Amino acid sequence: MNDLKVLFLNGSLKDSKEGSNTEALFEQSRDIYEHEGVVTESIRLADYHIPYGINGDMGNGDEWPMILEKIKEANIVLIGTPLWLGEKSSLATLAIERLYGSSGETNQKGQAIYYNKVGGVIVTGNEDGAKHAAASILYGLSHIGFVIPPNVDTYWVGEAGPGPSFVDADGKENNFTQKHVEMLTYNTMYFAKLLKEHSIPAKGNTL
Amino acid sequence: MNDLKVLFLNGSLKDSKEGSNTEALFEQSRDIYEHEGVVTESIRLADYHIPYGINGDMGNGDEWPMILEKIKEANIVLIGTPLWLGEKSSLATLAIERLYGSSGETNQKGQAIYYNKVGGVIVTGNEDGAKHAAASILYGLSHIGFVIPPNVDTYWVGEAGPGPSFVDADGKENNFTQKHVEMLTYNTMYFAKLLKEHSIPAKGNTL
Amino acid sequence: MNDLKVLFLNGSLKDSKEGSNTEALFEQSRDIYEHEGVVTESIRLADYHIPYGINGDMGNGDEWPMILEKIKEANIVLIGTPLWLGEKSSLATLAIERLYGSSGETNQKGQAIYYNKVGGVIVTGNEDGAKHAAASILYGLSHIGFVIPPNVDTYWVGEAGPGPSFVDADGKENNFTQKHVEMLTYNTMYFAKLLKEHSIPAKGNTL
Amino acid sequence: MNDLKVLFLNGSLKDSKEGSNTEALFEQSRDIYEHEGVVTESIRLADYHIPYGINGDMGNGDEWPMILEKIKEANIVLIGTPLWLGEKSSLATLAIERLYGSSGETNQKGQAIYYNKVGGVIVTGNEDGAKHAAASILYGLSHIGFVIPPNVDTYWVGEAGPGPSFVDADGKENNFTQKHVEMLTYNTMYFAKLLKEHSIPAKGNTL
Repeated sequence: MNDLKVLFLNGSLKDSKEGSNTEALFEQSRDIYEHEGVVTESIRLADYHIPYGINGDMGNGDEWPMILEKIKEANIVLIGTPLWLGEKSSLATLAIERLYGSSGETNQKGQAIYYNKVGGVIVTGNEDGAKHAAASILYGLSHIGFVIPPNVDTYWVGEAGPGPSFVDADGKENNFTQKHVEMLTYNTMYFAKLLKEHSIPAKGNTL
Repeated sequence: MNDLKVLFLNGSLKDSKEGSNTEALFEQSRDIYEHEGVVTESIRLADYHIPYGINGDMGNGDEWPMILEKIKEANIVLIGTPLWLGEKSSLATLAIERLYGSSGETNQKGQAIYYNKVGGVIVTGNEDGAKHAAASILYGLSHIGFVIPPNVDTYWVGEAGPGPSFVDADGKENNFTQKHVEMLTYNTMYFAKLLKEHSIPAKGNTL
Repeated sequence: MNDLKVLFLNGSLKDSKEGSNTEALFEQSRDIYEHEGVVTESIRLADYHIPYGINGDMGNGDEWPMILEKIKEANIVLIGTPLWLGEKSSLATLAIERLYGSSGETNQKGQAIYYNKVGGVIVTGNEDGAKHAAASILYGLSHIGFVIPPNVDTYWVGEAGPGPSFVDADGKENNFTQKHVEMLTYNTMYFAKLLKEHSIPAKGNTL
Repeated sequence: MNDLKVLFLNGSLKDSKEGSNTEALFEQSRDIYEHEGVVTESIRLADYHIPYGINGDMGNGDEWPMILEKIKEANIVLIGTPLWLGEKSSLATLAIERLYGSSGETNQKGQAIYYNKVGGVIVTGNEDGAKHAAASILYGLSHIGFVIPPNVDTYWVGEAGPGPSFVDADGKENNFTQKHVEMLTYNTMYFAKLLKEHSIPAKGNTL
């Protein structure tokens, strides 16, 4: 798996001066990727100047084009999000909007540039909303060209109401979450490798 | 509050020969209603023959028209649902479809028959999905004419992964859920009483 | 209705140097409000510096506190959003997050500050997604204390696929959308007036 | 592609004595499948007795087990749904619940029985809701083991408000919908063939 790259786009509302529960959950996945020789990179979206809008480059110091280059080089793109009122974050929403803004760009075969890439999602919240956020993000990725392998939604949430999130609640001890870390990691790797060797033919799917 | 009626439509997949976590959560609300003199009735949808379709009466022994009569007499209608794959149940979905099927019927003022009625939602699951199910149900009710007071989504869910639901997990001890039982119950009562005394004028909202 | 105030928070991704379909749809509602003597104000969120985060004031020139003051003074708050990939915009999501950030603030009775305020939603897109965006926004508003009257989701979308949005498609000629403009406007006014005269008692709903 | 099988589960609320817009949209896809030598079968769920519940066989004449056998034999499973209040139908929801009811069954490698199968979705409505319904269904399929190739959400919806659906509105003439018919059909075929030749290894994903 030495030639595969994973890019994690963390939609935490906090920049990297602060800890992120979603990052902590990704790190469990990252350990497996790196053990298998896959190169990983994590981007905290809140660290960058990413303007609103549906163009590849919105100008005025837009830092998204740099992120888009990394996406183009990645075989696996994972979107991370916290939950607020049971929804994915504004920054995760912004990431999807900006990805969509380049969904009309094509590869050499005339397919969307996200073809042959694999998507997945990592969600943490103190309670409720993970599946809804995952469904929204995975759909967005699938609709613009990503492949969604089975079981690539990994999450931790606690019991209804206010309370600690993943790190403070020792979410690492949750067997279900841990199992889904493995499923996401191994299934994204397998499909990325498979698509590298058997890219999707340009039949019925060019733009 | 003696002349108010609450109707609880329980979308549990199990009929009343079996226990229902969603029913158990409604019962906490029911105790307050009855203490305040409000008449309550609970209908387990799985006990009835409710065909698919978007008419008030689908014929062939359709028992929905009987339920619809109760809805017409109620001041407050609460939809209850369990969670499966993070979504409201098929039976809760069916209830919304059947309610929608009569949304073109009008009251004496020419407004939808659900005008001046108050809606709310009660959700239980062993984990995740309550807000998404609540949003869907409250939107459906609002779109066909119900009033949605603040904080009328009461739910209990547990930590990510398989596990006990409301009853076995002692969800009654959850302060957040208990607080929301009170909010739902008192706010639905207040608005039902307010609308009884000040019904919505027929201005801009007749069909 | 002379003493009522409506605040429209437009989550368009474009700032006010550019036209907004969502603004154009709101303007149909605004004409009715103003004819009835209600004061209206429209804020294009993209014109302001609104940092990510869940505090009332995130510091560093955060302009949200100024918007929050206007929200506190408003009787009716409408959230506007365009649709991207069938979802509300990142800026509309941000508005909900920032509203949520002050949901623990209380009024003199100890209820959330959004109690006795009325919410609604205005959505435009070239195709598909309006009801999903409306459900999410109305739920968020309801969960933090707003009242949701019947039929306060006004939208226009076109046929599946790329195409013109509200203004260029002459959405003003759509009878359904026009009817829902009236429903939203008259129903929000009625409930705002009703709540001004009959504020929600502090029973079961203080924080 | 001679040895591939496609199963279409149509969640229309009408049984096969009546026409179905969703069926008509599937037929466009079916023509391509059959031209490529893929065997197709369409099941109108409303024709069968499918009880509520989360077991593989609910007893009492449950006809789902017969459908489940067909699912087990299929390489591609497409869920079809109409839209009511912007949501997938109760019957489509029931299909997802019943699929989930067997998600603990394993293949010879110990993975969920849906591994190495490909999912997709076909949606029709007179207006709005297709992406939301597609996101929900594709997420459900993905979460229980199906692979979701790019662009396997095909839909038609019309302009906001009441109006004709796919057949009467000549949805076949919609280029976007037609393009997505091709994308769904060719991409599901390619992935089904790929997975037949390269089944997902049992690493990190057994139950």
